Amino acid sequence: MNCMPDQKIYIFDTTLRDGEQVPGCKLNTKEKIELALALEDLGVDIIEAGFPISSPGDFQSVEEISKVIRNATICALSRSVQKDIEVAGEALKKAKRGRIHTGIGTSDFHIKGKFNSNREDILARAIQCVKWARNYTDDVEFYAEDAGRTDNEYLARVIEAVIAAGATTVNIPDTTGYCLPSQYGEKIAYLVNNVSNIDKAVISCHCHNDLGLATANSIAGVINGARQIECTINGLGERAGNTSLEEVVMILKQHHTLGYTTSIKAQQLNPLSRLVSDTMRMPVQPNKAIVGSNAFSHSSGIHQDGFLKDAQTYEIINPDEVGAEGSKIVLTARSGRSALAHRFHKLGFQYTRNDIDVLYAQFLNVADGKKEVNDEDLQALANEYQAVAVTA
Amino acid sequence: MNCMPDQKIYIFDTTLRDGEQVPGCKLNTKEKIELALALEDLGVDIIEAGFPISSPGDFQSVEEISKVIRNATICALSRSVQKDIEVAGEALKKAKRGRIHTGIGTSDFHIKGKFNSNREDILARAIQCVKWARNYTDDVEFYAEDAGRTDNEYLARVIEAVIAAGATTVNIPDTTGYCLPSQYGEKIAYLVNNVSNIDKAVISCHCHNDLGLATANSIAGVINGARQIECTINGLGERAGNTSLEEVVMILKQHHTLGYTTSIKAQQLNPLSRLVSDTMRMPVQPNKAIVGSNAFSHSSGIHQDGFLKDAQTYEIINPDEVGAEGSKIVLTARSGRSALAHRFHKLGFQYTRNDIDVLYAQFLNVADGKKEVNDEDLQALANEYQAVAVTA
Repeated sequence: MNCMPDQKIYIFDTTLRDGEQVPGCKLNTKEKIELALALEDLGVDIIEAGFPISSPGDFQSVEEISKVIRNATICALSRSVQKDIEVAGEALKKAKRGRIHTGIGTSDFHIKGKFNSNREDILARAIQCVKWARNYTDDVEFYAEDAGRTDNEYLARVIEAVIAAGATTVNIPDTTGYCLPSQYGEKIAYLVNNVSNIDKAVISCHCHNDLGLATANSIAGVINGARQIECTINGLGERAGNTSLEEVVMILKQHHTLGYTTSIKAQQLNPLSRLVSDTMRMPVQPNKAIVGSNAFSHSSGIHQDGFLKDAQTYEIINPDEVGAEGSKIVLTARSGRSALAHRFHKLGFQYTRNDIDVLYAQFLNVADGKKEVNDEDLQALANEYQAVAVTA
Repeated sequence: MNCMPDQKIYIFDTTLRDGEQVPGCKLNTKEKIELALALEDLGVDIIEAGFPISSPGDFQSVEEISKVIRNATICALSRSVQKDIEVAGEALKKAKRGRIHTGIGTSDFHIKGKFNSNREDILARAIQCVKWARNYTDDVEFYAEDAGRTDNEYLARVIEAVIAAGATTVNIPDTTGYCLPSQYGEKIAYLVNNVSNIDKAVISCHCHNDLGLATANSIAGVINGARQIECTINGLGERAGNTSLEEVVMILKQHHTLGYTTSIKAQQLNPLSRLVSDTMRMPVQPNKAIVGSNAFSHSSGIHQDGFLKDAQTYEIINPDEVGAEGSKIVLTARSGRSALAHRFHKLGFQYTRNDIDVLYAQFLNVADGKKEVNDEDLQALANEYQAVAVTA
C-alpha cells in the first residue's frame, strides 16, 4: 500500500540526564559510561549524557562519555545562560558528534511565574542562547520548555526565530505531562503548517507521563510530523517519568504500516532494562509494558487455553523479539484444564480428558489455598492419582 | 463554552477479576471483601468481583461480596457457556444490583485459532449467551473478546444482535493491547454510527497496556461515544495490565472542558493504591503516574527553582487532590541554589545570596558523592561555614 520508503525516527535517549536527575538514580562517572556504551549498542541515535554546569561530577561524566562513544551523538543540556552553554561546549570538546541542548520556558506559567518576564524578552533570550551554542557546534537543539501549555501562535514565532538563529532540532516538551494525544498532535501539526522554515529542523517530542499519556503523545507527535522522540529506558524521569523508549520503539515496529522505522535493536530491550534498573536502583513494576516481569505471563484459564492453541490469540509481540524470557503459563486458581494438561504433559504425564477432569477438581482445591501451583504440587497430585488408580 | 451538563462516565473496576488473575495476586475471600468495600468507598460504579466458575474459592468471594456491597453493582464474569452463566447467576443471588458479564472472541484470530469455528456460529453463540444471562438479571454486559482486532463490520453485526438479545452494556476489549488511540477511537465511532440500536446500551472500553496505550485508548473511546471504562487500581491485569483507574479518572478531571465526570473520590486514590499494592503483593514503580512514590518529587535545579516560585510551573495536579504526600524537593547533585536556600531556610538558616554561592560549591562536592543530601549533611555544612566565618 505504501510505496514510500519508511521514514527514520531518531531515538534521543535521556536516561542519563532526565532519568538520572530522579531522586535515588544518581550515577557516578563509571556507571554513566557503562550505560552510555550499552545505549550506543542498543542503537540509540542521540545520548543526552548530562547537564555539565550542574556539578563537577556531571561535567566529568559528559566529558568521559564524549571520549568513548563513536557512533551516537552526545548531547549536553544547558539553560539559556551563557556560562551554562560555555561549560556544555567544553564538556563536549572530545565528542565525535556533539550537540548542545539549550532553551527556555515559553508558556505564560513559565514566563510570568518563573522568569517574571514577558514574551518579547523570552523570544530574544531564546534567539541569543541558540547563537551562543552555535559557537561550539553546528548541532544545536532548542527546547521550548512547557511547550505543551504554550500558546501555539507564540510558540510558532519562537520556533521560527530559533531555526533562523541556527537551531537544527526543535524540541516541543510537554513538560508537565498535561496534553491529550489529540492536543499534542495538533500542536506539532500547527508548527509544521505555520513555521516557514520548519523544513530546516527536526521536530522533537519530549513528553512526560503525569497522566499516563507520554507514549501516546509521542506517537501523536510523530504521526503529525515530528521525527525525533526523547525517551528513557523504563520510562524513568522527573516525577512520573518520561516516554518509555521500549514502548515507542515497539509501537512503531508493530504498526509498521504507519511507515516509520528506528535503529533500535529490539532484542536488547529487556537486558538493557534490567541493567538500567539495577544500576539506577529503580524497580520496574511487573505489569510494565514490554519490560515488566509479567509482560508475557498468561494466567487466566481463558487466556491460557487460547494461547496454547495459537499464541497470536493473546500475544502481539513474541517475547524473543524484545529479549524477554519466553511466555509463561502460570498455574493459579484462575487456570483452566488445558493449561493443567499442558503442564502435566511437560512433566511427562499423558492424561486423558477424563483423567484431567478428576485431577482438575483436586488442582483447584490446592490452588485456592496458594498463589501459584508449582511442579512439586503437580507431582504430588499425580502420585496421589496413580495410587488411587492402582488401588481401584 | 459548554452549556450541556457533564456526561457521567461509569467506572467499572476489575482489580478483583482481571487484576486478581495475575500471577502472585490471588486473594482469599476475606481480602477480596476488604478491597471491594474500599472500592465502593472510592466511588466505583461497578465492581467486577470475580469469575465464579473458575474455582470454589472465587465463587464464595463473589457470593460474599454480593452480600456486603450496597451501592456499587457487582459483576461476575463467565464464558459463553451455559454452566458458567448459571454459576455466575447463582453467585450473584444476594447482590442488590448484580450484573453478568459474558461473551466470546470475535476476531478471526479467536474464531479460527481458539474456537476452530466461523463467524455465523460465533454470532449465534453470542446471542445465546446473552439470552441465558438474562434469565438471571436484566443487567447483562456482553464482551466481544479481541474486538481490537475484529473487523468493524462483523463487530457491528454482533453488537447489534446482542443488544437485540438483551445486552445493556457492550464491552469492546482491546484484549491484546494492539490498537493505536486513533484506531480504537474510530472503532467506537464506527459502532455509534453503524449499530441501529446502540442507544439501548452503554459502550464500554476495556483496554490492555501491552504497548503502553491502554489509558490513551480508553480516553479515545470515551471521546468517541463510550460511557464506561473498565480499569484497575495501579493498572494491574494480565501481562502488562489494564487501564489504570487513577490515570483515566484524573485525565477526565484535569481536562474538564471535555465535559465528562466520574463519581470517584480522587483523594482516596493514593491510599487505595497502597492498600491494593500491599494486599496483592504487587509493587508500584516510583515513576508510576498519580500513585508512584516519585510522582510529585522535584529533583533537578531547573524544576525546583520554578516549582518554588510557582508550583504550577511544573505541577498540574496538587498532590493533596489525589491523597499523595506533599510535593517533595529532593536535594541531589542536580539541584540548584534556590532549592538549597529553601532547605537551609527550613532548617532555620537565613543566608544571603553570597553565602549560598559559597555553600553551593561545598554542597555539590558532598552531593557528587551520594544519592541524596539530607538535613544532617546540610547541618554539617552550616556548622563548618559558621566556624570559618568566626575564624575569619
